[in-house]
Amino acid sequence: MRTEALCVDADRLLRRLEALAQIGAIEGGGCCRLALSDEDKAGRDRVVSWMRELGLEVAVDAIGNIFGLRRGLRDVAPVMTGSHIDTVRTGGRYDGNLGVLGGLEVVQTLNDAGFATQRPLVVAVFTDEEGARFAPDMLGSLVYVGGLDLQAALDTVSIDGERLGDELARIGYDGSAPLGLHRPHAYVELHIEQGPVLDEEGITIGAVENLQGISWQEVTITGQSNHAGTTPMRLRRDAGYCAAAIGVFLRQLASELGGNQVCTMGKVDLHPNLINVIAARARLSVDLRNTEELLLQEAERRLARFLEELARAESVTIDTRRLARFEPVQFDDDVVRMIESHAARLGCSHRRMTSGAGHDAQMLARICPASMVFVPSVKGISHNPAEHTAPADLAAGANVLLHTLMELACQ
Amino acid sequence: MRTEALCVDADRLLRRLEALAQIGAIEGGGCCRLALSDEDKAGRDRVVSWMRELGLEVAVDAIGNIFGLRRGLRDVAPVMTGSHIDTVRTGGRYDGNLGVLGGLEVVQTLNDAGFATQRPLVVAVFTDEEGARFAPDMLGSLVYVGGLDLQAALDTVSIDGERLGDELARIGYDGSAPLGLHRPHAYVELHIEQGPVLDEEGITIGAVENLQGISWQEVTITGQSNHAGTTPMRLRRDAGYCAAAIGVFLRQLASELGGNQVCTMGKVDLHPNLINVIAARARLSVDLRNTEELLLQEAERRLARFLEELARAESVTIDTRRLARFEPVQFDDDVVRMIESHAARLGCSHRRMTSGAGHDAQMLARICPASMVFVPSVKGISHNPAEHTAPADLAAGANVLLHTLMELACQ
Repeated sequence: MRTEALCVDADRLLRRLEALAQIGAIEGGGCCRLALSDEDKAGRDRVVSWMRELGLEVAVDAIGNIFGLRRGLRDVAPVMTGSHIDTVRTGGRYDGNLGVLGGLEVVQTLNDAGFATQRPLVVAVFTDEEGARFAPDMLGSLVYVGGLDLQAALDTVSIDGERLGDELARIGYDGSAPLGLHRPHAYVELHIEQGPVLDEEGITIGAVENLQGISWQEVTITGQSNHAGTTPMRLRRDAGYCAAAIGVFLRQLASELGGNQVCTMGKVDLHPNLINVIAARARLSVDLRNTEELLLQEAERRLARFLEELARAESVTIDTRRLARFEPVQFDDDVVRMIESHAARLGCSHRRMTSGAGHDAQMLARICPASMVFVPSVKGISHNPAEHTAPADLAAGANVLLHTLMELACQ
Repeated sequence: MRTEALCVDADRLLRRLEALAQIGAIEGGGCCRLALSDEDKAGRDRVVSWMRELGLEVAVDAIGNIFGLRRGLRDVAPVMTGSHIDTVRTGGRYDGNLGVLGGLEVVQTLNDAGFATQRPLVVAVFTDEEGARFAPDMLGSLVYVGGLDLQAALDTVSIDGERLGDELARIGYDGSAPLGLHRPHAYVELHIEQGPVLDEEGITIGAVENLQGISWQEVTITGQSNHAGTTPMRLRRDAGYCAAAIGVFLRQLASELGGNQVCTMGKVDLHPNLINVIAARARLSVDLRNTEELLLQEAERRLARFLEELARAESVTIDTRRLARFEPVQFDDDVVRMIESHAARLGCSHRRMTSGAGHDAQMLARICPASMVFVPSVKGISHNPAEHTAPADLAAGANVLLHTLMELACQ
């Protein structure tokens, strides 16, 4: 068999993406499948049934990660691929889903060709990658690699006040497989870029060599609620103003540090949140990212200093709580080169790049050689129903994944 | 009868304040009786039953304003007092309630003394003074004086999506009395200051000579939701940042205009409001107040200019919607002097002052001579469960109200 000629069935991949997108569909073509919600359960059920149709042996571990195993000729460490199917509240249809369904498409392509790999192949679906309902993000893969204690993860409380372990049991994905099942020989994840670089440069394949470090904090400001008409400006302890000042500071911080430093205040909740009442409390999120650990630490230090000054100047108290902290990640250079060479052989334009987003691959990189295959996001739009990747790019990414996995599975 | 010697029963007034505060009680001693909620209905029922016990003739008009009439010796235009019993979500127990229950205490004092006034006396409870559930604030008194069309008021939709007319019918306060019932000869309202001036200066009675103009706007920013990690700062259209920039601008605006200009952003809602998603939309409230109409207009102009520049600089669209706009109000100088003279005769320290808050009295000032009696708010705290006024000050205010109403009722 001339394995170099193998290629995925793009229409079949698109059909599965379309079918999964119908679960939790929202206006504008996007998806809302928050982790461990009813919609997430329905999506999982759909993927598991596809896995079974493809002859994969399905296992679910104690944090709800799903693994579909295709046996190899030898009983050795498998090559793993995968991603997640949970979404943010205004998610697109490709983020995560492409990695899972691309993995299934690789399996079906190998099945149809009657091709047996030396090493087993595993398609993984990791729990709560987005962190939009339960922080931190990438929770399932973090627990999988031993970076977070299972009990602590199960005790995590969602933004809607539910315990993760209870929600996992409720949707029937509190599995019995041991954590760390199928410890991989290597891991490769196909994903949309979620940024504008490939689209702007007209390049099809990104071979991901590293990934930004992430620092997430929740900031709580406690001032005093008071009448918005009768309280002179000089006597205010206005938590709403402080939240605004932090939002503006974050923009300055990104500008001062430059490079690829990004800062976001994506979530703000005021209390009592009424037009004529000075806010007594504000709770907001700060998301800082940088590829350089030292610069990320500098951003954290400057923010902390600003919060101290602000609390003093405005007579409020400011508390911070770390929600997530991941150092920048360096992916495996051999795997990156393998991705580049298959992209080149398949006639795809390609470049090395940095991931600005966190991905399950960064957790897997702790225990095995890992990297990622990126395909373009039109206009860089993601976490948005308008998220889009051209069908030809989806197919190209799946083909690069197919051949990279096949090469790794022969090692 | 030596009417100068009449005085209210402070304990009785306190007992009614305490009893009303139990309805919709919240932690910390405050109240949550949002307009036309179940709690507001329960509060209204309580006040109406007290009115009937005092022999008042109760009427409810089509916008739910409640009037308790004590007949005079002559069938002429009555002297009116009153206020409101709806609260903000984190309301205190005196704001509004004192004006209504102070009025009832005046009636009971006159009843007990067997004193008949020449003019009738009316105690009014106006609907939705706070505007915390249905904008604009002072809605009931505005409709009463003909400043807002009844149908437009009934069609107002609350922050929880309910129609005012439906809520009014639901709680049984869609009355049949004609709008403008009991058109008053004069109106005097007893109220807590809700600001720090009297408390800081150790003065018991404020004779309110004017009232700040109010400009309320809802600002909606539409940007683009996108991934917080992968979207470079320069490519963002971040509605959350724009909301923060507006909050910081408002502080600058108050500082630049100086005087008694106050600016507040009390309400902010981001969408999707998630930690790792750049906000696509922000909706926020702007509350501007000044005693000088020209300065208030200047504040509005500067804000509009800033919003234009911000929209251009950040590639977002910004829409504003006027929620309320009231010009500064000048109260009747004769009534103000009457309040001062009774305060002096009763041995209370007093001063003329400006109201920083909006009050039903400003609406009544459109149709009759009107003013207000203020008593101190400890530390100026209001719209907060910690709102407090010393019992002696409550009694002093009620006594000044009693004698001012008696003098007006003899005219």
